[in-house]
Amino acid sequence: MEEKEISQAVIGRLPRYFRYLGELKDEGVERISSQDLSVLMKITASQIRQDFNNFGGFGQQGYGYNVEYLYDEIGRILGLNRQHSFIIVGAGNLGRALGNYMNFERRGFIFKGMFDKDPALFGEKVRGVEVMPMEKLDAFVRENSIDIAVLTLPKAGAEEAAKRLVQNGIKAIWNFAHVDLNVPEEIQVENVHLSDSLMKLSYNIDRYEHEQTAEV
Amino acid sequence: MEEKEISQAVIGRLPRYFRYLGELKDEGVERISSQDLSVLMKITASQIRQDFNNFGGFGQQGYGYNVEYLYDEIGRILGLNRQHSFIIVGAGNLGRALGNYMNFERRGFIFKGMFDKDPALFGEKVRGVEVMPMEKLDAFVRENSIDIAVLTLPKAGAEEAAKRLVQNGIKAIWNFAHVDLNVPEEIQVENVHLSDSLMKLSYNIDRYEHEQTAEV
Repeated sequence: MEEKEISQAVIGRLPRYFRYLGELKDEGVERISSQDLSVLMKITASQIRQDFNNFGGFGQQGYGYNVEYLYDEIGRILGLNRQHSFIIVGAGNLGRALGNYMNFERRGFIFKGMFDKDPALFGEKVRGVEVMPMEKLDAFVRENSIDIAVLTLPKAGAEEAAKRLVQNGIKAIWNFAHVDLNVPEEIQVENVHLSDSLMKLSYNIDRYEHEQTAEV
Repeated sequence: MEEKEISQAVIGRLPRYFRYLGELKDEGVERISSQDLSVLMKITASQIRQDFNNFGGFGQQGYGYNVEYLYDEIGRILGLNRQHSFIIVGAGNLGRALGNYMNFERRGFIFKGMFDKDPALFGEKVRGVEVMPMEKLDAFVRENSIDIAVLTLPKAGAEEAAKRLVQNGIKAIWNFAHVDLNVPEEIQVENVHLSDSLMKLSYNIDRYEHEQTAEV
């Protein structure tokens, strides 16, 4: 099937469809209408149909969608039938939390290596993967054709690490460092700026309280 | 200053402005034009002016913005001049990583308690805060008027924990559990679905490779 250029907003919603369909499948549901999926996911049925039409519509024909087929297709579109190797740069608490997250493996993300500059951590293992010194990063990425680097190190080291990763052929960076990276356009970057998300929450708490007071 | 209803898209950009302005301030920059800020942040100057106009414009008058004033104002809008108490529910790797993140305190987020159902963790301390059993959650939230709960526990426990938190007066949930919570509208929720973000990366890697192949 030829896929046209899909907007990042649509792509951003696919994992959520995938998650809900996985749950329906686990519950033994075989078919679901866009109407029922709409109620479940709290988005409009027309949004769902519009999103799915980007991929040929997945063949709803009055009977609703075939849950398992839809789950598999969306997984395939997301590339979850392929394997992607990843390393974690920064073996602090967050890096270790991500390394320990088994679910990634189920989705085809294979944890290959972990790096830190702190000698006290060298040789420590996270789910069987050893923490290595930063000096070994470049060769490791090149020789093992690593696809994805997870950056869980302080801002100060993140820019330099990103530069080295790019030079050694990394394809994508999952960035948890509190900085927007300067990398070539062909490198895929997903930022998870945790503080930003907490600040948004802070705003919305205060806003809501302000509104309540104003209404009194 | 009376603030009108601001879109969540604008709110979502404020933390990023705040971050860049903090860096400029640390570097000793006193004034910056929307043009220079635009180049630095890779968004258009007109977007910046439009965003700031939601808050009265912050008085750019040909000289550019006063960096420190703008930083303080945006921090105030985000509620960072106020204190918010938070607890962490789920003392696994991710929960501990977030508990150890000192930066939150600098922004007025005060770490008050940590809960888990695993007796092996009771009494363990994360940055001076003790892990308590889930049985103590309800009373603790109520008696300490906790504002924010961070959910870092598996999906299965997250829904029930959220329900108990809401019953005991929580204002906001920062949700890392792999599920969309069903909570009343007045509860502010920010979801950080880490797998979703990784899947998006996976899609974009494959998409880019597909395009490269197609162009050959």
